[in-house]
Amino acid sequence: MAISHDLDGVLIAPNPQAPGLTRAVTGIDAQGEPVETSVVEERPLTIFLNGTEIVTAMTIGDYPAYLALGFLLNQRMLSPDETIKGVDYDEELETVVVRTDGTTRHEEKLKKKTRTSGCAVGTVFGDMMEGLDEVQLPQTTLKLSDLYALSARINRMPSLYLEAGAIHGTVLCKDAQPLVYMEDVGRHNAVDKIAGWMLSEGATASDKMLYTTGRLTSEMVIKTALMGIPILASRSGFTAWGVEIARQVGLTLIGRLRGERFVCLSGEQRLIRDVAPRDRKEDPRQIRKGAQ
Amino acid sequence: MAISHDLDGVLIAPNPQAPGLTRAVTGIDAQGEPVETSVVEERPLTIFLNGTEIVTAMTIGDYPAYLALGFLLNQRMLSPDETIKGVDYDEELETVVVRTDGTTRHEEKLKKKTRTSGCAVGTVFGDMMEGLDEVQLPQTTLKLSDLYALSARINRMPSLYLEAGAIHGTVLCKDAQPLVYMEDVGRHNAVDKIAGWMLSEGATASDKMLYTTGRLTSEMVIKTALMGIPILASRSGFTAWGVEIARQVGLTLIGRLRGERFVCLSGEQRLIRDVAPRDRKEDPRQIRKGAQ
Repeated sequence: MAISHDLDGVLIAPNPQAPGLTRAVTGIDAQGEPVETSVVEERPLTIFLNGTEIVTAMTIGDYPAYLALGFLLNQRMLSPDETIKGVDYDEELETVVVRTDGTTRHEEKLKKKTRTSGCAVGTVFGDMMEGLDEVQLPQTTLKLSDLYALSARINRMPSLYLEAGAIHGTVLCKDAQPLVYMEDVGRHNAVDKIAGWMLSEGATASDKMLYTTGRLTSEMVIKTALMGIPILASRSGFTAWGVEIARQVGLTLIGRLRGERFVCLSGEQRLIRDVAPRDRKEDPRQIRKGAQ
Repeated sequence: MAISHDLDGVLIAPNPQAPGLTRAVTGIDAQGEPVETSVVEERPLTIFLNGTEIVTAMTIGDYPAYLALGFLLNQRMLSPDETIKGVDYDEELETVVVRTDGTTRHEEKLKKKTRTSGCAVGTVFGDMMEGLDEVQLPQTTLKLSDLYALSARINRMPSLYLEAGAIHGTVLCKDAQPLVYMEDVGRHNAVDKIAGWMLSEGATASDKMLYTTGRLTSEMVIKTALMGIPILASRSGFTAWGVEIARQVGLTLIGRLRGERFVCLSGEQRLIRDVAPRDRKEDPRQIRKGAQ
């Protein structure tokens, strides 16, 4: 699969050559011969909301302001209508401070958060689940031709994944157009950076879809729904709760997307079959094997 | 690749047929035809240490006692010499309570933890990093023949991954023998369940190795080192900080392990090349592509 450097219409693309995102390290291969290989960086970033330390995230380190904004937004510690006075990133201290106009409800939220956080998969469910009741997702449609074109294009775009592996990507898309492609060592950071970008740019969510390389867990589904994006697609697999929540909120959930094969477990009414279905049947085992 | 049901010498193996671990859901495939597929369960489990609520983890739900013990141990909220009075799991309340003899330092720890937790990749670094100074890893050796046999056998064992995908696995091994194979929706839960099993069984760590399907991040390396296991191998890729910490503590770190190919970025002195190296050179791109 050849890498394609066509970035036409892409607003933010991965930059595998950017200094500080990957590191060349020397080791040995199976033959015992020295190999120099490229590995992704991973560094702590401590996010503050006004005076309060909220979290230390492990991140690749690009777009700290988007990550901070998106994390606070997706954890519902920051409401979309909050007035952001500023976002200050200090590279040396590895901190980013989001300043709002006046104190938010974050202290009260924080009390709740500290009772439930530290989750082994990095989730604060209390606040996130609450928000789902208010979610209303529009009946935006998705052409299969666009889905296939997107997935082929995303897989061919230069990325840290192709360069060094061990990283997850999330792409904000409209129809067949990848708009913002974020990568991070934590797949939730990648989606949070997209949420932060959307807040900063005042981007509409209703006509977009999210593509992720990560698994379709409850948390990915909740974040996508809270962002107001009606369609979530992944090359990876599903968890039962992810499917359950997607069906509750009416989100279209497409997984195990490989070439022109996928499984849709929720919201199939949004799909428009504008391409002739292939003859050959799915090979479930092969689909599954791509699921991780 | 045929599934092999040879479980000779395996103490705990995945049980894909166990009720409650996967769910059959119906959706549609790319042809628009209905498909019934199997997806992994994901449910919250709230861990208490004596009277204190510590964390709510998202887990597949098997071995809650091992998960709770291992999580507390790996977060260093529980020291290995602590006397455990009991571990009470309540399936209905989705809680597990670890009771120790007298109060531990956990309240003080907790104060620290709540300042740093909620990390987007589920990490509490404060306490974990501290423990690394005390780590002394033995010069246990690993034959390449054993490594290849292990990886082939693990990949052929019946597992939730082969059944439903979207799940990570961690296997405690000795030489060519897989001993305990845990899977979970959070890759950290899988290694925590192994830590909990080792504590409960009083298993030695010095002669073992860990195999994980997940990426070799700082947290995976730290947990393995804190568990006293000198070798960590994965089919996935590395992060720079994971490599850095492995070199600091002298842990053998093997990644991108596919068939008889791998990259070793730390502690290569433990490897014994008892198999003739193959002629063909590595194909780095192909290795990378397996890295996620």
